[in-house]
Amino acid sequence: MSLIKKRIMAPGPTEVPPTVLAAAGQPILHHRTPQYRAIFAEVCEKIKVVFQTKQTVLTLAAGGTGGMEALLTNLSEPGETVIVVSGGVFGERWAKIAEALGRKVAKIDVEWGKAVDPAQVEAALKANPEAVLVLGTLSETSTGVEHPIEAIAKVVAGSKACFGVDAISGLGACKLLMDEWKIDAVVAGTQKGLMMPPGLALIALSDKGWAKANSIKSGRFYWNLPTALKSMTAEKLPDTTYTPNVSLVMQLRESLNLIHAEGMEAIWQRHQLLAKAAREGAKALGLKLLAPDSPSCAVTAVWSPEGVEGTAVVKKLRDEWGISIVGGQGKLKTSIFRIGHLGYADRADVLMTLAALEVVLTQLGVKVPRGEGVKAAQGVFLEAAK
Amino acid sequence: MSLIKKRIMAPGPTEVPPTVLAAAGQPILHHRTPQYRAIFAEVCEKIKVVFQTKQTVLTLAAGGTGGMEALLTNLSEPGETVIVVSGGVFGERWAKIAEALGRKVAKIDVEWGKAVDPAQVEAALKANPEAVLVLGTLSETSTGVEHPIEAIAKVVAGSKACFGVDAISGLGACKLLMDEWKIDAVVAGTQKGLMMPPGLALIALSDKGWAKANSIKSGRFYWNLPTALKSMTAEKLPDTTYTPNVSLVMQLRESLNLIHAEGMEAIWQRHQLLAKAAREGAKALGLKLLAPDSPSCAVTAVWSPEGVEGTAVVKKLRDEWGISIVGGQGKLKTSIFRIGHLGYADRADVLMTLAALEVVLTQLGVKVPRGEGVKAAQGVFLEAAK
Repeated sequence: MSLIKKRIMAPGPTEVPPTVLAAAGQPILHHRTPQYRAIFAEVCEKIKVVFQTKQTVLTLAAGGTGGMEALLTNLSEPGETVIVVSGGVFGERWAKIAEALGRKVAKIDVEWGKAVDPAQVEAALKANPEAVLVLGTLSETSTGVEHPIEAIAKVVAGSKACFGVDAISGLGACKLLMDEWKIDAVVAGTQKGLMMPPGLALIALSDKGWAKANSIKSGRFYWNLPTALKSMTAEKLPDTTYTPNVSLVMQLRESLNLIHAEGMEAIWQRHQLLAKAAREGAKALGLKLLAPDSPSCAVTAVWSPEGVEGTAVVKKLRDEWGISIVGGQGKLKTSIFRIGHLGYADRADVLMTLAALEVVLTQLGVKVPRGEGVKAAQGVFLEAAK
Repeated sequence: MSLIKKRIMAPGPTEVPPTVLAAAGQPILHHRTPQYRAIFAEVCEKIKVVFQTKQTVLTLAAGGTGGMEALLTNLSEPGETVIVVSGGVFGERWAKIAEALGRKVAKIDVEWGKAVDPAQVEAALKANPEAVLVLGTLSETSTGVEHPIEAIAKVVAGSKACFGVDAISGLGACKLLMDEWKIDAVVAGTQKGLMMPPGLALIALSDKGWAKANSIKSGRFYWNLPTALKSMTAEKLPDTTYTPNVSLVMQLRESLNLIHAEGMEAIWQRHQLLAKAAREGAKALGLKLLAPDSPSCAVTAVWSPEGVEGTAVVKKLRDEWGISIVGGQGKLKTSIFRIGHLGYADRADVLMTLAALEVVLTQLGVKVPRGEGVKAAQGVFLEAAK
């Protein structure tokens, strides 16, 4: 087999910058030392800009789903009602976790590929006045939809409920202003906009969120955030209650250095630009977008052309071009494919992926105007560079 | 500044595969130990297939130019005549080294952008019957020309002179069969087809070459190849006379593993394919090639469009796209740009580079049919995949 480089154009895990990869090669520091805690302190400070918050951001040695569970167990008690916005696999996950943990779930079913209308959230709050928590998703990875978080937050802020956002695949890519928008809880993972390997969940709560978290009586131990907060503030330097993922924290310092150097405004703009180029490229090839009206800036979901399963496109791009995009999830498993363009991704990545996609679709018998997808994406970049 | 990945599409140094990069992170082994020498033995055995030789391949802690000097000082004495094929910066370098070291140089001046005609070498040998060495270049990096090494070797084999080839930027990319073609000396570097950082020169001699090397009386110490050969064969495991570049040798083991897994035939084919795609892409954009008749499979040299300096194209691609191609050298400094496609390079790299080049040329005011360069390269890949 001829040499083919491995590239990730999936909506997470994403590629990891060389300096972040190299940081994993550092010797392990013991976590109960001032040396490690100084690094951790730096990370805890620098991560705040990504959340756009003044609150403490807690790091948990866990995947993103662990972070979602932490959010849920700290902002609701068993038996309480939570409203879940579900319009894809990850909205659905909120509901599954909540049900597994004995919460009453009031689900807002949104058509896959559409964003929730904030009025639906308002209605759900009215219909469920006892609800203590509304759960939403910033970028719904399974459909490529970006939900109107700012508008939902405004609605929820007027109620007694907290608003928790799964920003796992969106934070550090799509704009989110936790404090300004009055979001009560944001959970993120490292393997997306943070340009890191998976393995750390990050979570921050608002004052309203902390008030609820402090009142929770049962059903949490590893995820006990008030305990975690105590460890963070007990001494001069922040600490974690349980053993942290030392190497990932050292890598996170490097990725945060890159993020601070680029700046959040530039990062959001870059993701918007890459997403627009991916969409225009796909459209120029005659492909249809799953979420044309509320597209995510982290991932673009494309209907696979008639007669071609999305999984076939994914397989060919991966096996013959080394480019890992992904197919659909759940009921969209074979009918779409999704191109990620977040984290450590740039314009050349998008052009390359479109160029390879044109070849693959041609080989699968789809009549695509080769070169036109690339040309449309180039047009987006040329316009932006003016 | 928005995030831009750094990519190398230069004719060396090339990109380095992850497993090869990671090998540099291993602890230093002392070189006079059986542990290190076992690794070195593996490298010395596996490198032979790249040279297509049964001879011992010597490793020198030196850049490629050091390897050229080693070749010259072992295959000629001061005062002896050497014939140099010069049609670019690196042919010219042979002449400069030879003159600096007191050899008489008979130069075959080849028009830059053309390959030497073996008949010219035959004529030079007739005109200089005292010549002990003919020096040629496999891939002349400065012009993107691949010289007819097999045919030249046939001509030189009929004379008393040895034939030494600078294969630094060609070995492991362009086809070269040292033993079968009867080449007397081949010198290579690690930063090209071997997909490595720079720093190691590799050299192998034929029996005819060794006979000459063993007869040399003066003018070499660090480059004394018979001494180096003695170290290689004195004990059970090969050794170097002076301190070797331990980390690079450990990395070379990894790159040779990749090379053996891919196979030389597949490697030569890949490079031919990438080169053809680069040429067709450039031509479809209306650009003219410097060496259309004898193009190298390692690098493609393109005349910069009228009114645009090649250096401007290079700068824009590097600064705004993170893609390092190179401009011209010597008298071609501003009039051409060169795209490397050797070593750790694949089809997606070529498509990406052409796509970015189309944008850059457009911004520089050149009327290029955007998308057509990519489309032509795609066509080459589609045809090859049939």
